[in-house]
Amino acid sequence: MANAMQPDDTPALRKLYADFKDQHLNPLWTQLGDLMPRHPRPKAVPHVWRWADLFPLAQASGDLVPVGRGGERRAIGLANPGLGGEAYVSPTLWCAIQYLGPKETAPEHRHSQNAFRFVVEGEGVWTVVNGDPVRMSRGDFLLTPGWNFHGHHNETDQPMAWIDGLDIPFSYQNDVGFFEFGSERVTDYATPRFSRSERLWCHPGLRPLSGLQNTVSSPIGAYRWEYTDRALTEQLLLEEEGQPATVEQGHAAIRYVNPTTGGDVMPTIRAEFHRLRQGAETAVRREVGSSVFQVFEGRGAVVMGGVTHKLEKGDIFVVPSWVAWSLQAETPFDLFRFSDAPIIERLNFDRTLVEGGD
Amino acid sequence: MANAMQPDDTPALRKLYADFKDQHLNPLWTQLGDLMPRHPRPKAVPHVWRWADLFPLAQASGDLVPVGRGGERRAIGLANPGLGGEAYVSPTLWCAIQYLGPKETAPEHRHSQNAFRFVVEGEGVWTVVNGDPVRMSRGDFLLTPGWNFHGHHNETDQPMAWIDGLDIPFSYQNDVGFFEFGSERVTDYATPRFSRSERLWCHPGLRPLSGLQNTVSSPIGAYRWEYTDRALTEQLLLEEEGQPATVEQGHAAIRYVNPTTGGDVMPTIRAEFHRLRQGAETAVRREVGSSVFQVFEGRGAVVMGGVTHKLEKGDIFVVPSWVAWSLQAETPFDLFRFSDAPIIERLNFDRTLVEGGD
Amino acid sequence: MANAMQPDDTPALRKLYADFKDQHLNPLWTQLGDLMPRHPRPKAVPHVWRWADLFPLAQASGDLVPVGRGGERRAIGLANPGLGGEAYVSPTLWCAIQYLGPKETAPEHRHSQNAFRFVVEGEGVWTVVNGDPVRMSRGDFLLTPGWNFHGHHNETDQPMAWIDGLDIPFSYQNDVGFFEFGSERVTDYATPRFSRSERLWCHPGLRPLSGLQNTVSSPIGAYRWEYTDRALTEQLLLEEEGQPATVEQGHAAIRYVNPTTGGDVMPTIRAEFHRLRQGAETAVRREVGSSVFQVFEGRGAVVMGGVTHKLEKGDIFVVPSWVAWSLQAETPFDLFRFSDAPIIERLNFDRTLVEGGD
Amino acid sequence: MANAMQPDDTPALRKLYADFKDQHLNPLWTQLGDLMPRHPRPKAVPHVWRWADLFPLAQASGDLVPVGRGGERRAIGLANPGLGGEAYVSPTLWCAIQYLGPKETAPEHRHSQNAFRFVVEGEGVWTVVNGDPVRMSRGDFLLTPGWNFHGHHNETDQPMAWIDGLDIPFSYQNDVGFFEFGSERVTDYATPRFSRSERLWCHPGLRPLSGLQNTVSSPIGAYRWEYTDRALTEQLLLEEEGQPATVEQGHAAIRYVNPTTGGDVMPTIRAEFHRLRQGAETAVRREVGSSVFQVFEGRGAVVMGGVTHKLEKGDIFVVPSWVAWSLQAETPFDLFRFSDAPIIERLNFDRTLVEGGD
Repeated sequence: MANAMQPDDTPALRKLYADFKDQHLNPLWTQLGDLMPRHPRPKAVPHVWRWADLFPLAQASGDLVPVGRGGERRAIGLANPGLGGEAYVSPTLWCAIQYLGPKETAPEHRHSQNAFRFVVEGEGVWTVVNGDPVRMSRGDFLLTPGWNFHGHHNETDQPMAWIDGLDIPFSYQNDVGFFEFGSERVTDYATPRFSRSERLWCHPGLRPLSGLQNTVSSPIGAYRWEYTDRALTEQLLLEEEGQPATVEQGHAAIRYVNPTTGGDVMPTIRAEFHRLRQGAETAVRREVGSSVFQVFEGRGAVVMGGVTHKLEKGDIFVVPSWVAWSLQAETPFDLFRFSDAPIIERLNFDRTLVEGGD
Repeated sequence: MANAMQPDDTPALRKLYADFKDQHLNPLWTQLGDLMPRHPRPKAVPHVWRWADLFPLAQASGDLVPVGRGGERRAIGLANPGLGGEAYVSPTLWCAIQYLGPKETAPEHRHSQNAFRFVVEGEGVWTVVNGDPVRMSRGDFLLTPGWNFHGHHNETDQPMAWIDGLDIPFSYQNDVGFFEFGSERVTDYATPRFSRSERLWCHPGLRPLSGLQNTVSSPIGAYRWEYTDRALTEQLLLEEEGQPATVEQGHAAIRYVNPTTGGDVMPTIRAEFHRLRQGAETAVRREVGSSVFQVFEGRGAVVMGGVTHKLEKGDIFVVPSWVAWSLQAETPFDLFRFSDAPIIERLNFDRTLVEGGD
Repeated sequence: MANAMQPDDTPALRKLYADFKDQHLNPLWTQLGDLMPRHPRPKAVPHVWRWADLFPLAQASGDLVPVGRGGERRAIGLANPGLGGEAYVSPTLWCAIQYLGPKETAPEHRHSQNAFRFVVEGEGVWTVVNGDPVRMSRGDFLLTPGWNFHGHHNETDQPMAWIDGLDIPFSYQNDVGFFEFGSERVTDYATPRFSRSERLWCHPGLRPLSGLQNTVSSPIGAYRWEYTDRALTEQLLLEEEGQPATVEQGHAAIRYVNPTTGGDVMPTIRAEFHRLRQGAETAVRREVGSSVFQVFEGRGAVVMGGVTHKLEKGDIFVVPSWVAWSLQAETPFDLFRFSDAPIIERLNFDRTLVEGGD
Repeated sequence: MANAMQPDDTPALRKLYADFKDQHLNPLWTQLGDLMPRHPRPKAVPHVWRWADLFPLAQASGDLVPVGRGGERRAIGLANPGLGGEAYVSPTLWCAIQYLGPKETAPEHRHSQNAFRFVVEGEGVWTVVNGDPVRMSRGDFLLTPGWNFHGHHNETDQPMAWIDGLDIPFSYQNDVGFFEFGSERVTDYATPRFSRSERLWCHPGLRPLSGLQNTVSSPIGAYRWEYTDRALTEQLLLEEEGQPATVEQGHAAIRYVNPTTGGDVMPTIRAEFHRLRQGAETAVRREVGSSVFQVFEGRGAVVMGGVTHKLEKGDIFVVPSWVAWSLQAETPFDLFRFSDAPIIERLNFDRTLVEGGD
């Protein structure tokens, strides 16, 4: 379509185009259809990374690659096959498996990029966020919002791996990132069961009077699995009782939120947890913006752009913008999800198309 | 001061003033100092109601006064001595002790006035809010935001009493109230331990995807004592560890909030719970707007306008606008507080003066 | 209805009620229907004050009553006949005719009450708001938001009268007001055509980079008639061209807004200007909250609660809460309106019922 | 720095890195310093495009390239020399010179990308936005927010050129764009002096009651030069009178805003106009996010990253993120500016460093 009205290829036109190039100009009419397609046509592609592949490679890097100042983290980024080898799971999001060996410490630093961790298995690591030690255990969702110092240390004789999510591609692309090194060790090696942030903030519907100022990101350092699991369990029970509680039949879901606002945990990243009953299927949805899911428990499948991918515990997949997706649960099926939805919504680009449904 | 420039009292002036009256006019210059004082000069006065007085009168009314359609509630309003006998604890707020005998039911109705209940002692009553039965137990704070149907029933052989707080004076004064009768019985006599609202909403930092629309008032029907107590306990422990957590030395406090916004539970009423260590004293504060406190546990005193009032469990006191107040804890001292602060703040009339401090 | 379930009048009950009184208590069941009616049942009544009555009385007070420190203003408040003689046009609003004789000065003061002036006729007075002299002329709407020093002076040999609107009753009732005297003369006797506030802020869609902080009230000192008239004229022309522009057929209207937010000019007071074509009638509306209108030009009528009141230039009428009202235009008909709608809306008590339509 | 802790280059490591590649993985430790620099290190470079170069090339394209369905616009994008030839003036922004010959029509379409036009010289074209014809004249700033149909037509015998600004790179990069063709001609060839949007909305501080719903983007189609010029003139006059009005000494500036909110005109693009007195210099600023300026009138210079570029009327320059910049006015100096600041601020990445000052 973009070429429908292209001018004849004459010497004069070639001269014009050469002049454009000399003057650092580039005409719209030769590229409109690519630049401004009828609907999002992402270069990023739907893709599944298998935990069975990821974890052994993380282990191997644990043997070969030191962790310390400079490299900072033993983190292996998922590189979307459509994005030319860059460690971008989508144009906006970074997702990596991070691995910390027995007794290792990842040094402290801070950056304007927003970060979280999600733990699909294991325990024994504490992440220290602005001096507050936060235990990491299976099912926990842990926050390191922009410009908070953070480091990690493994207290045990066992290695531990988890996934990191950040807005690195977005920050890099738009030139918004700052970075600062901190301590080469973590500033507090205590190993409390609950972080100070949880002790102050994790009481439902209660806000400390010492924390009445709203914050850009959530003040909660760890969203514990125990609460997530209970919330989802209750939604399914309420559904059985005939009460409105779930997103759609057989599909419970919670969003992790900033208790000072009720909104997303960080300005650029949304995080959710989804639970499907055995046999449930979600409606087919298209959404502007990209999402990453990790299977936490159970077996099932995701259909992306018409292609079905079987899924097992730990598997990670990405749904690029406007790709139709739905989930199918072979067993009870638990999935963690994160996305760039706050970017999309705050800039008013959000659109959703639900193709099927109950 | 208002009289400094009053005109001479001449026949012409008397004629003018008579004409004003005939034409429904009233000049500013004769009343300025009263109408527009240098600082708030409330008619409402500081006052303490003793639980030892209130409860027996509530019991007596239980014997003499039926509860049912028409009267609707066996609620006895606290009438500020400065407000001419009206059942107003302050110009904006209503506070009553409500009493429900064994097996009694208070019928369902709804009104645009916002309401809550706080339970200083007892159990056995369920309040049914829009069909959702909510257990009432000691220390619980329970919501009935405007225009939600609600009724109460006592399942036991014991009477139960609690306090109600509403914005009735504000609604009456400003002509904003609507009222509608509902069922003469409650619509659901189930007695679940937790209401559906709690099962959906009381998971810290987690929001159901079925509840992403913000609501004017909190969707939580009951804020349980267990959580309030734990939050306050943690604040004092954190203080002992040298961490910022309390409002001031020895003074822990939480605000009950709407999880969809992080703001006040209802558009007109703020509710908080305060805990003082034994021996602690708060700073002396003056605030625009009026507050009501009820002692939940312990012994201490409130100083209002320079007068010290000893306090025991269940005692209720009102702090009118701009009256200097502070608390003193003889023992560990727990107090529930509610106020009209959302009215004051949303209309930008808020001012606070802290005269002393830690 | 409130009396349906009243207990028998026994000695025990009389004793109980006496005890209530002794203890500063007042039961709900004897007063429910009054306190919490089915819909707002204001004490304030619809009423019309005639400019033909008001202006001569203002003139007479100009002869008899000095203006100066203490009395502060020669302002005569409209006292709603339902409100017991208080100078309240409604439970929330004050409306007065203010009169300033030749060469007189009303001294500077400030108060937390929000104030405006509207000029139905005349010119020659400057109001000085925080040191910024603001010309007052026919059709202008002038702001003095809470806590801004302000005084007025008449530069001419002619007296001038205008109406003042404030939230005095609301502030008085809820004990939120502060007051401070300023200079006994105005601080700047300059008489510029446009105030500094207008020169900085009255450029449509343009915001000074020196004023990026949002303000609680509008920074504009004067909303000039020239702009109001033009806006309304354009709306009616657009309507003739078949374009959406008016509220309803033949009814143009603008709201005065705070350019930093697009919202109401002050936290407690809404102000609007309405223009009806000759022969136009508005739909019949009921609204929560009270409004005051002044006829600026033309002849017509208002129907309030089924009663028709003929209106001429300068006439002022009040519509109490939930009273059905509509306007009829005998000639082209211009009316200024102010109301307590921001109070009602910020506290989520707003409801509107449109009984008829266009 | 990123390489400080790189592992030894062993066969095992090479095997690991090859496995990473096979599995679409990419480790952080080899690229950290590039991906997450200490401060933004944009690929985009400061650059100046000369109007003396741009306009003749636009004219030449007018002779060689048709305008019509398919190519849609005769727009020539400024391609930042650091961005590999893409028509991106910065990572987020598109800036093009658009040229429309005598009597030509650019057909209607709509897209989710937000767009504006700014006219440095000429007149005679009307842009038709959702059916509302909007005159384009020197100094006017014209809006076409996302998803509004728009086309342009030249009524005269003279060609006209202007600049377009859009968020095409941002939309393309993040896969958020939708596009739809409309009429091949504009839907209304009327040539009114003022658009309907202006007639409804361009009255300072006045909001139509038919437009009380806030809109994501400004409803104003054209911000006229007459108003911009007057606002800047008044700021400099106020400065001369000793009043606060300018950004810094000798530097007046306005931001174009959405009158329904007081905020930016569109969710992704900020637009401002700056005026410097002859001889004035601005402070040296670093800001997160990228800006584009066009000289509207006068002569002066911009210093970017320590390099001084002389500027004349029509010259366009880009300031990439975190590049230090300041302006110097040889004559009275007027500049139009647009930027991606709303993206940066809504996602809380904003930082500003003012190195000097007034």
